[in-house]
Amino acid sequence: MRDVAIIGIGQTPVSEHWDISLCDLAVQAVKAALLDAGIERPEMLFVGNMLSAALSRQQNLGALVADHAGLRGIEAYKVETACGSGAAAVRMAYMAVAGGACDVAVACGVEKMTDGTPEEATAALAEAADALYEATHGLSFVAINALLMQRYMFEYGYRHEDFGPFSINAHENASTNPNAMFRRPITREQFVRSRPIADPITLLDSSGIGDGSAAVVIATGELATRLGRPVVRIAGSAGATDSVAVHDRREPLFFSAAHTSSQRALAQAGVTAADIDFAELHDAFSITAALSLEACGFAPRGKGVALALGGEISRQGRLPISTLGGLKARGHPVGASGVYQVVEAVQQLRGQAGSNQLPGCRLGMTQSIGGSGANIITHILERIS
Amino acid sequence: MRDVAIIGIGQTPVSEHWDISLCDLAVQAVKAALLDAGIERPEMLFVGNMLSAALSRQQNLGALVADHAGLRGIEAYKVETACGSGAAAVRMAYMAVAGGACDVAVACGVEKMTDGTPEEATAALAEAADALYEATHGLSFVAINALLMQRYMFEYGYRHEDFGPFSINAHENASTNPNAMFRRPITREQFVRSRPIADPITLLDSSGIGDGSAAVVIATGELATRLGRPVVRIAGSAGATDSVAVHDRREPLFFSAAHTSSQRALAQAGVTAADIDFAELHDAFSITAALSLEACGFAPRGKGVALALGGEISRQGRLPISTLGGLKARGHPVGASGVYQVVEAVQQLRGQAGSNQLPGCRLGMTQSIGGSGANIITHILERIS
Repeated sequence: MRDVAIIGIGQTPVSEHWDISLCDLAVQAVKAALLDAGIERPEMLFVGNMLSAALSRQQNLGALVADHAGLRGIEAYKVETACGSGAAAVRMAYMAVAGGACDVAVACGVEKMTDGTPEEATAALAEAADALYEATHGLSFVAINALLMQRYMFEYGYRHEDFGPFSINAHENASTNPNAMFRRPITREQFVRSRPIADPITLLDSSGIGDGSAAVVIATGELATRLGRPVVRIAGSAGATDSVAVHDRREPLFFSAAHTSSQRALAQAGVTAADIDFAELHDAFSITAALSLEACGFAPRGKGVALALGGEISRQGRLPISTLGGLKARGHPVGASGVYQVVEAVQQLRGQAGSNQLPGCRLGMTQSIGGSGANIITHILERIS
Repeated sequence: MRDVAIIGIGQTPVSEHWDISLCDLAVQAVKAALLDAGIERPEMLFVGNMLSAALSRQQNLGALVADHAGLRGIEAYKVETACGSGAAAVRMAYMAVAGGACDVAVACGVEKMTDGTPEEATAALAEAADALYEATHGLSFVAINALLMQRYMFEYGYRHEDFGPFSINAHENASTNPNAMFRRPITREQFVRSRPIADPITLLDSSGIGDGSAAVVIATGELATRLGRPVVRIAGSAGATDSVAVHDRREPLFFSAAHTSSQRALAQAGVTAADIDFAELHDAFSITAALSLEACGFAPRGKGVALALGGEISRQGRLPISTLGGLKARGHPVGASGVYQVVEAVQQLRGQAGSNQLPGCRLGMTQSIGGSGANIITHILERIS
């Protein structure tokens, strides 16, 4: 397969965008990414989205976004893997360009969660779970993750407050990201006093409901070099699945799909977890961040929380995560988050992350999750010029 | 890109499957296709589906279907282009294998339309249209196509009864297909007396609501040869889009996306429309079949209906279409139909179409449409052994 680079990035702030439609949100990100890349007309568009059918009464987003972005006629598709849909769009665009189906593709993630009520959004998010074996029993998506967190605390002996550093780090990093939704730093006391959502998960363990869109332009490495764009290479790209129903896994506390997809992506890039300078992980809940760190090999089992408690996930630590706020504080417009992660990793690798910049970073990992560990897509991005 | 073949096909009958879940329907088709191919574990799965979020409260179908089909762990995605979603899944699987991302992929289309009431299904189908510029005015999906048919009759001087041959041919062919939903032949009189749905579209101009799933196993040509499977090659594969809102097109009666995608697919295959032995087109409404024939170059503009009136679309004609019943009479479980078309084309090319067999066919075209001409995917299939 061919060498592939990201040559353009675009994003809207994550917010409650009451004045912009789902489609227009996507158009803003796509146009920004094309402008950044200096490309007028890509050959393909992949749109990652989860909730538009339920909340915006709109499907067919591939053709719709392509047309409204001034790209009528190009090949376009929507891809869905629940909350990991944006990363799936990036993976499709990667495969199309690397495989030779086209030279330039755009991956866009978009979500307009405020098109429904919070109750409607909560019901729609539960569709990421197994409808017949989980949701039918009344389990919301938060509840499923609360069961995981409960078990984790039981198995490894942590207290709820030990998860604080994930949230505190995310809010700290979001405070200086103009595209972030929750820009106030929080204290340990605020975390401890945060109100319960589904015990033991509290408000400050959870990402919020928001609207947003992000996009990347993906091209052959050869074209990137010819255009003279800053080259961030997609060095590794992989996806893997697990059962959707959490109770059906041999080891519920081990995200095997995160393990498989990260190992594949690292192997493709020819590096190991120890070589990664920073990671944009799927911190939709603090327990999710902990389990991801462990499954990717950044911490031994049961030690993801310890890594955070030791300060290693901050921008000054050994493995900075959520460097621009993560899902927790940049915001989690679900189908868009996987693309936000890639956009932010490119910001870091290009040296365009402003006051959030990690000095001298060269290798970043992004990982997005659909369902409670059911579908996990990992990318390794590398700065080479 | 590499040579790609279809080495396995599977399908469930199209019906009202009250006793089977959405997921189990997909599993039946996937397992049948893998058995037919002699493959135990493909590397990737692409699921085409439109309505599960609205009607079955279930997303994340990639991971869900993979797991329930005994393929836990493999890479899996859902793809959506409204009623063309199944064809999009085939296109993704083609790109993955042709581009070298994997050697064996499964494309599955599934739809469980009876999980909702007919009213809910009608509302969900309208999400294929532009929510803000079409559906918001109360236009159902049938109504949009009725406007197209009205305009077509006005421009070209046809009467409603002239469209009869599309429906009569489809029902005739379905009558001997055990997987078809509507297996009774209809007469010209029945067509003329059929009750109106959205004037001028009548019940017998329209495909019905049904459940079903179809799947194909796609592999490298080299692997197909090594396995000794009957080789049906994907000689051409292409997608193209148009505006979603029909009023926004310069020529509403010309499906430009059908033109572009069919021309690209034919060019890739190195053939012309005149070389095609049969076509499985998107006859969701009889007007759609007429417009597709014209846009693909099988008939001049305004002559698609004339082609049908002349008997050329029957199994004895110059260009047989809907050879196993088409969307009209095999049934149109929307996100599955694009895969049913490919499965049926392979049946024809392998000589496995039973009493519907076209003697000596070598080149078939399948074309699936998402929205009223908005997203159109074309495949050219060729028998080479």
